[in-house]
Amino acid sequence: MTTKIYETEKPKLKNPIFIEGLPGIGQVGRISAGYLSEELKAKKFSELVSSSFMHYVLLHQSSSVHVLKNEFYYWKAKSNNQRDAIILIGDCQPIDPSGHYEVTHEILNYIKGFGVKDLITLGGWGVGEASKNPRVIGATNNPDLVKKYNGYNIDFDAGSKIGTIVGISGLLLGLGKYYGMNGICLLGETAGYPILPDPRAAEEVLKILMNILKVKIDTTKLEKKIKEMEGFIKKVEDVQKSALSQLIGQKPEKGSKDELTYIG
Amino acid sequence: MTTKIYETEKPKLKNPIFIEGLPGIGQVGRISAGYLSEELKAKKFSELVSSSFMHYVLLHQSSSVHVLKNEFYYWKAKSNNQRDAIILIGDCQPIDPSGHYEVTHEILNYIKGFGVKDLITLGGWGVGEASKNPRVIGATNNPDLVKKYNGYNIDFDAGSKIGTIVGISGLLLGLGKYYGMNGICLLGETAGYPILPDPRAAEEVLKILMNILKVKIDTTKLEKKIKEMEGFIKKVEDVQKSALSQLIGQKPEKGSKDELTYIG
Amino acid sequence: MTTKIYETEKPKLKNPIFIEGLPGIGQVGRISAGYLSEELKAKKFSELVSSSFMHYVLLHQSSSVHVLKNEFYYWKAKSNNQRDAIILIGDCQPIDPSGHYEVTHEILNYIKGFGVKDLITLGGWGVGEASKNPRVIGATNNPDLVKKYNGYNIDFDAGSKIGTIVGISGLLLGLGKYYGMNGICLLGETAGYPILPDPRAAEEVLKILMNILKVKIDTTKLEKKIKEMEGFIKKVEDVQKSALSQLIGQKPEKGSKDELTYIG
Amino acid sequence: MTTKIYETEKPKLKNPIFIEGLPGIGQVGRISAGYLSEELKAKKFSELVSSSFMHYVLLHQSSSVHVLKNEFYYWKAKSNNQRDAIILIGDCQPIDPSGHYEVTHEILNYIKGFGVKDLITLGGWGVGEASKNPRVIGATNNPDLVKKYNGYNIDFDAGSKIGTIVGISGLLLGLGKYYGMNGICLLGETAGYPILPDPRAAEEVLKILMNILKVKIDTTKLEKKIKEMEGFIKKVEDVQKSALSQLIGQKPEKGSKDELTYIG
Repeated sequence: MTTKIYETEKPKLKNPIFIEGLPGIGQVGRISAGYLSEELKAKKFSELVSSSFMHYVLLHQSSSVHVLKNEFYYWKAKSNNQRDAIILIGDCQPIDPSGHYEVTHEILNYIKGFGVKDLITLGGWGVGEASKNPRVIGATNNPDLVKKYNGYNIDFDAGSKIGTIVGISGLLLGLGKYYGMNGICLLGETAGYPILPDPRAAEEVLKILMNILKVKIDTTKLEKKIKEMEGFIKKVEDVQKSALSQLIGQKPEKGSKDELTYIG
Repeated sequence: MTTKIYETEKPKLKNPIFIEGLPGIGQVGRISAGYLSEELKAKKFSELVSSSFMHYVLLHQSSSVHVLKNEFYYWKAKSNNQRDAIILIGDCQPIDPSGHYEVTHEILNYIKGFGVKDLITLGGWGVGEASKNPRVIGATNNPDLVKKYNGYNIDFDAGSKIGTIVGISGLLLGLGKYYGMNGICLLGETAGYPILPDPRAAEEVLKILMNILKVKIDTTKLEKKIKEMEGFIKKVEDVQKSALSQLIGQKPEKGSKDELTYIG
Repeated sequence: MTTKIYETEKPKLKNPIFIEGLPGIGQVGRISAGYLSEELKAKKFSELVSSSFMHYVLLHQSSSVHVLKNEFYYWKAKSNNQRDAIILIGDCQPIDPSGHYEVTHEILNYIKGFGVKDLITLGGWGVGEASKNPRVIGATNNPDLVKKYNGYNIDFDAGSKIGTIVGISGLLLGLGKYYGMNGICLLGETAGYPILPDPRAAEEVLKILMNILKVKIDTTKLEKKIKEMEGFIKKVEDVQKSALSQLIGQKPEKGSKDELTYIG
Repeated sequence: MTTKIYETEKPKLKNPIFIEGLPGIGQVGRISAGYLSEELKAKKFSELVSSSFMHYVLLHQSSSVHVLKNEFYYWKAKSNNQRDAIILIGDCQPIDPSGHYEVTHEILNYIKGFGVKDLITLGGWGVGEASKNPRVIGATNNPDLVKKYNGYNIDFDAGSKIGTIVGISGLLLGLGKYYGMNGICLLGETAGYPILPDPRAAEEVLKILMNILKVKIDTTKLEKKIKEMEGFIKKVEDVQKSALSQLIGQKPEKGSKDELTYIG
């Protein structure tokens, strides 16, 4: 397993809070963190690549390619009641259980170097059907945090049913404890289909995030943004499916030829 | 592969005996070691996490999460005829063959540092049907031990049929030999369904264990304890199944929605 | 994961350009790079073997065997307007996603030691049906290269549809960026069946390659060469299939006995 | 991946020849090398264990267990025309392709320390049906060896059909070349069912081996020996199948209960 972080800048940050939003159920985390990063004009300072990601590069309209990666952005507080932030977004999560652990340890080691002590991870909570008024469920790696995050309209009741948080959002909390970090995971209630980005759930997560971070961002462009992303995300999913079927020796389907061309 | 042991205390132990009981057939090892540890009021001093465990965290009623882990407890002898003990219990075993070896080597390296020379590993022996009077089968990594453990009502006849002991209970014995450790595995006869904890088999194992350790613990609460555990274990199993089906791209079943909510 | 490079000679090269052509769709990259290397009389100087290749050796007519490997050749410029070159060809690509990353990092580390700053990777672009006049699609790891490689009859339009480049051809570009290397991938349009070498696509790729390298090679022997290779490649594919079915416990098919004998 | 060699003695050997016979097709290599080792009264001096072996221990009649392992034996030449030998036998081969490479590298590194320059690996050549007069096929990692091993009744014609040698027998030759070792693989023609030991093929291999080593051993006990082994080998196979089905969550079959009891 090889995971490497390539750094283009070494920002000086003061007690930064860490926010993670990678692809997952309903793309809730990815949309929320991506939109936040863009609206705050956060600056990219490093990229993480891992041998536990799929082994292809994405080809863009500019005819240029990039390897699958996770990206670290930073944002500096504008006023005294705000805190510096590191935001992690990306193309994908690892494809094997072991990779999730390795990448999570790499992330925790890396952000520890910036003095991170607080984590907010974002994701979706798949409930099987669409919800008009999606709740945001909270889970923490330290029972004391329930009090700290009280008053943000986070639902701490989910724990009454035992469940799991799969992937990096969960492991950052679970392993983060051993790195001396407190963490909360915000999960927007969503139908639970990874392929369909859920703007309503993402908006609810964003609202809570803005309150916690004490920042104001315009969420009216969110729907439009997601519309733009939808095409891209769908294509990536199709490509991934096509690449996987190629891997197991199947011929790419004919029907998808015009829209998507498998290159190998 | 990354396996880490996070230590919260470095106990000073005198010639400690090591006891392992992780999840497995009939949950026999897990129940016996867990109950023993609780009744002895053994104290946790370190936690082992591994990238060969499933890549999720468990969400509890308190809305807090924890990563899957194995836990080391110690107990100090109360009288001269007793010995200090290290007890290993936990949420799971590795999910791949290679992980079983790596975690076992980590455990052996770690306990060697405390001067461990004797191992007792606990498990179930699946015979396909429930037994009214479950036997406890013994297997050792050194033929001389059969004599040593004579008189404890351990059945050393199973060896007449060639078999295997799968997982950490077996590997601790097999690899432990290279670490200069003698080991016995106590296997309680059970139907062999991992999902159903078998109190009868666990009790038989516990009785023998008490005799070996020369401790007295009240086993009357065992049934009650197991009843409590049963719900938890069943939920963990369901969650694991749900997480696995999610991994392979299936929609979570609708029927299980009320009891169990998959979060990801 | 173990990847090793065994070097038989340490050539002194001046600003060499790196060319990769490993097995893949339509065998386009493998044929083009192999033919180029042979016609230029390039000299082998090292071999790469990896634990992510299939675990068998190939048995040749001479009754001698060789382990699956990738081979590095070098060629020294004959005139001032040419550049030294390193050419990578080989028997196979890794069999798992993680292996693709590890081997690519090894290759990049290794050629960095020779001062490589420019990469040309070769492959096929599967379009589902044979094409009379196959185009050569270009993809780069740096948008500026589109201008640089303008005028070579490379089609930079493919990017209008999002796609992927799977395997080492893609990863060399994607990861090469972090090694300070500029790279272009030339993909010959082909039907997309890995088993059938496509001479037409390979010839188109070769023509462009000759222009970029400012070398002249005789392409008239290409068809004949491919005919020779076809038998070999088909046998290797059959053997691989046979080995895989053996791995999963199936009896080798009877029909293939005369032509191909599975040895294990 | 963790592979460890535990050494109980460090023999001083003079230019030893290395002989490998691990389980494989028709058990030809395992039987030949095991019988040779026993008849020569070769002495065990080290054991290799690997995380790429199955994760269980074998339980014997003595109620003692051992972890799956490969074993190194040595034999000292009795006369001037003989050579010292290291013989490798064992319970199994790795269960994954990557493991085959790692274990092979470990073996080569280890025997290099004893000055080994010549390898003889033993195996079966599956031809799909039983043969009355099984040939012994030779394959080498150096074409010059065909001349050296001329006159031993080894068939060097198999190479006329391209094939593969799967597993450690092949990789020792293929990778051994990079360690400066010459190697020949002797493959006894056999039907090709791993589960059935083939005494006829093993005897043919043994005869050639005796000629090369210039030793005389009594092969009349071979059939009897194999009869003894057959039961053991069949049980190990059954146990492995049972363990694998357990791994994938199936209940052990009822019918096999009396003979074989799955323990976990």
